[in-house]
Amino acid sequence: MSSVDNFLSLADAPGDTLADLLRLAARIKAEGPDPALLAGKQVSLLFLNPSLRTRTSMEFAATSQGAHVVTLAPGADAWRVELESGVVMDGDAAEHLTDAVRVLSEMADLVGVRTFAGMRSLAEDRDEPVLTAIAAESSVPVVNMESALDHPLQTLADLLTMQEELGEDLSSVPVTLTWAPHPKPLPMAVTAAFLRGAARMGMDVRVVSPPEFALPDALITDARGILPGTGSISVHHDRNEALSGTRVVYAKAWGSVQHAPYEGDAGEQIDGQAARMAARDWCVTDETLQCGDEPIFLHCLPVRRNVVVSDGVLDGAHSRVVQEAGNRLHTARAVMARILGGA
Amino acid sequence: MSSVDNFLSLADAPGDTLADLLRLAARIKAEGPDPALLAGKQVSLLFLNPSLRTRTSMEFAATSQGAHVVTLAPGADAWRVELESGVVMDGDAAEHLTDAVRVLSEMADLVGVRTFAGMRSLAEDRDEPVLTAIAAESSVPVVNMESALDHPLQTLADLLTMQEELGEDLSSVPVTLTWAPHPKPLPMAVTAAFLRGAARMGMDVRVVSPPEFALPDALITDARGILPGTGSISVHHDRNEALSGTRVVYAKAWGSVQHAPYEGDAGEQIDGQAARMAARDWCVTDETLQCGDEPIFLHCLPVRRNVVVSDGVLDGAHSRVVQEAGNRLHTARAVMARILGGA
Amino acid sequence: MSSVDNFLSLADAPGDTLADLLRLAARIKAEGPDPALLAGKQVSLLFLNPSLRTRTSMEFAATSQGAHVVTLAPGADAWRVELESGVVMDGDAAEHLTDAVRVLSEMADLVGVRTFAGMRSLAEDRDEPVLTAIAAESSVPVVNMESALDHPLQTLADLLTMQEELGEDLSSVPVTLTWAPHPKPLPMAVTAAFLRGAARMGMDVRVVSPPEFALPDALITDARGILPGTGSISVHHDRNEALSGTRVVYAKAWGSVQHAPYEGDAGEQIDGQAARMAARDWCVTDETLQCGDEPIFLHCLPVRRNVVVSDGVLDGAHSRVVQEAGNRLHTARAVMARILGGA
Repeated sequence: MSSVDNFLSLADAPGDTLADLLRLAARIKAEGPDPALLAGKQVSLLFLNPSLRTRTSMEFAATSQGAHVVTLAPGADAWRVELESGVVMDGDAAEHLTDAVRVLSEMADLVGVRTFAGMRSLAEDRDEPVLTAIAAESSVPVVNMESALDHPLQTLADLLTMQEELGEDLSSVPVTLTWAPHPKPLPMAVTAAFLRGAARMGMDVRVVSPPEFALPDALITDARGILPGTGSISVHHDRNEALSGTRVVYAKAWGSVQHAPYEGDAGEQIDGQAARMAARDWCVTDETLQCGDEPIFLHCLPVRRNVVVSDGVLDGAHSRVVQEAGNRLHTARAVMARILGGA
Repeated sequence: MSSVDNFLSLADAPGDTLADLLRLAARIKAEGPDPALLAGKQVSLLFLNPSLRTRTSMEFAATSQGAHVVTLAPGADAWRVELESGVVMDGDAAEHLTDAVRVLSEMADLVGVRTFAGMRSLAEDRDEPVLTAIAAESSVPVVNMESALDHPLQTLADLLTMQEELGEDLSSVPVTLTWAPHPKPLPMAVTAAFLRGAARMGMDVRVVSPPEFALPDALITDARGILPGTGSISVHHDRNEALSGTRVVYAKAWGSVQHAPYEGDAGEQIDGQAARMAARDWCVTDETLQCGDEPIFLHCLPVRRNVVVSDGVLDGAHSRVVQEAGNRLHTARAVMARILGGA
Repeated sequence: MSSVDNFLSLADAPGDTLADLLRLAARIKAEGPDPALLAGKQVSLLFLNPSLRTRTSMEFAATSQGAHVVTLAPGADAWRVELESGVVMDGDAAEHLTDAVRVLSEMADLVGVRTFAGMRSLAEDRDEPVLTAIAAESSVPVVNMESALDHPLQTLADLLTMQEELGEDLSSVPVTLTWAPHPKPLPMAVTAAFLRGAARMGMDVRVVSPPEFALPDALITDARGILPGTGSISVHHDRNEALSGTRVVYAKAWGSVQHAPYEGDAGEQIDGQAARMAARDWCVTDETLQCGDEPIFLHCLPVRRNVVVSDGVLDGAHSRVVQEAGNRLHTARAVMARILGGA
């Protein structure tokens, strides 16, 4: 990663970058950050969606290495921004994202942006139109703090946690990515990002969900396309089968592209809440974990307790969710150190 | 106070801690903070209720001593958090306070939290269920930035201000804690905290209010239980009597536990606004102060001018409210220096 | 500028202050800020109106020179403040601006405040009652981060940008300040501030608008009163005439004092939206710029694309809006360096 590179996705991170970033994060975690590495650097963080872990980890990642940071949350503490190109801005939005990004990148040495999924069409979200536009307009490196279909900072922390627990070489390690119920139709950003990251490490990934909530084929195909020679991506609808012998249970809720707010094949707007909550027995419990091989439990947080996963699992011996969240700090420090500090 | 202690209440602060903290705060005020004392430390501040003085003083207390700080205000710039244990989180809250605290304490060296009173039952609020849960879940020291029935950072500043004006030894100094009208039924956190702090210093505290807004007996009894041998707590409903010869007038509005939102003895929901505002003559004016012995006037702020206290008093020679608010900075520095810096 | 001076307006900045500030800003831009100049200083920023550029530039201006900063946005992340004097505060506002400013100035070495126009009466806004009250109550220097009818930080950046493009001596350089359509009746703060700044530099300023949106005579007269001997202020309603030979097109939307929310001559509340949007052909396009002498295009941002100015102009070769916004950082650094650092 040169000093001008963006950090947008793990899918296309060059050759050794991913392994190097993980080693750097592990070293920073063990030895502490260099408090002067980023002295004089200015970091601008723009949250178009709210955040707790990403905001805390990115702010501390900057300041603990000597950089200064300004965080903005348009809609909360600034005006709303327009995302579409070429429009006549006579509505609510006071500023175009294009101009906001040009200005912030003029004042800062790195811009972090959290956007969100359009959730109208999977094809549109796969194109990452907003993130792509931001990266095109910025005059400094851009860090993706979650986008329509990606969240590489989260995945880095997931991968570091699995390395800590299961060894640095994750190739062919079985991991189960299980759908979970949720009152809201969540986007697939964390799901897709984790799938890519696990694929890049050559893991044996079993993706399991009720048939109605099957992960779109395109995401499965994308992930298979970046397998390094080892590893596999298999699709399941029988959870016990998918859990058999697994070392990692990674739970995540997501909405179906057949339901609203996606427009679906027929453009129909089917409210999926009833379907999602009808599958409440997909909540991960201690019993679920017993199907694996002493698996660790991971979740990106925030998590709906006793909907996505039981209190018992979250507070029990298998859970690594707090360690995983804490690794957000060390991996964010590594990303900033590489981009701004030449580390 | 050892380096791992919490700062939750002045009621149970060990032996010399209170006196030491006040001396340390006075020294920091005189000599300035040590800008490198907390180098490399990370402070996470979580405001479940809004703040001006506490946020400003705590952020500057951290940064002026070399620590880095990240402030979050869920509901304003992050999602709402669930406070109850064991619930099925299929409602509005996206994250449980338990998980937020575990994560923030994994990333930071100190966690400050502002919660709020349930104001359903005094007994419940006296148990401080939310603050207690936070302290139990955190892996690092917790600082109470106001809770159901406490606000020790405010009281420290109150005590320092009285020491500056009336001498370091406050034992047997008469102070009048007077109820004041207010359009809203405010919690008793500042009131109860001040009562505890004044009791710990062995002051002669006169608590005065209309009979309908008498401070609950339990709070009076609690305070009497921590008197150091000197001092007293007396309860009054005649304000002139309570003000006679006083050296300090400390005004504060609070709601009655007989009124909504408290459920009251009979579970009735009586709106107390009419009663509170009918007692408008309890507004502190220059005439009120003349009943004392050249008393100083204190209030924690924010204050409703000409409802709680007149413009004349706030802007006049007796007021020490700005000095008191400024002391929030020095006392917050002392608390952080003790907890994180071994000072 | 002595170490205790406020920075409220360019209208009355003493003799060489304006030129000195611009030279200092240019030097900081070229050489970088002194990272230790403001070590130990504390800066409090209070935004009663939202912000992106001002917040980012002021926060980085402080931290990049070694100061610590706390930013508050009452209404967003704190309670609302009362602005009127002498009122009985039994309504929504929990704190009076007077007390907030006294407290913040007790904790900080510099207070920056963004207020807003009352937009009831031009005479009232010209008196700047809120800003004046803040400056009177603060015990430390106050920086105007936009007020009823002024925005000197924006104008400093505008002037620096024009100097960079057209030479340090701007006297008699023709600049066209053109009204632009907008769905909302915007205040005249940026307009009035730019007019004052351009007048102070002795530029030839042509102010042009539809007759219905003529800038009030009082603002024109004020600006003429501070011309340094060179320069002129002329008023136009024919845009081509006002653009002929111009070197700078400065676009800005503003509402008419004949329309709501201003009370107008007859106290009538006429909604001006239809009138503002009927003048859509005042949108600045490439064709507009061709009337000038290879003019640069400036706008303070945020801007409504294709309402105020076309995509083509903003994204084209004449635009200097990103450079202008970036200069907010360097000019803010200069202001802070002068006030707090003796630079």
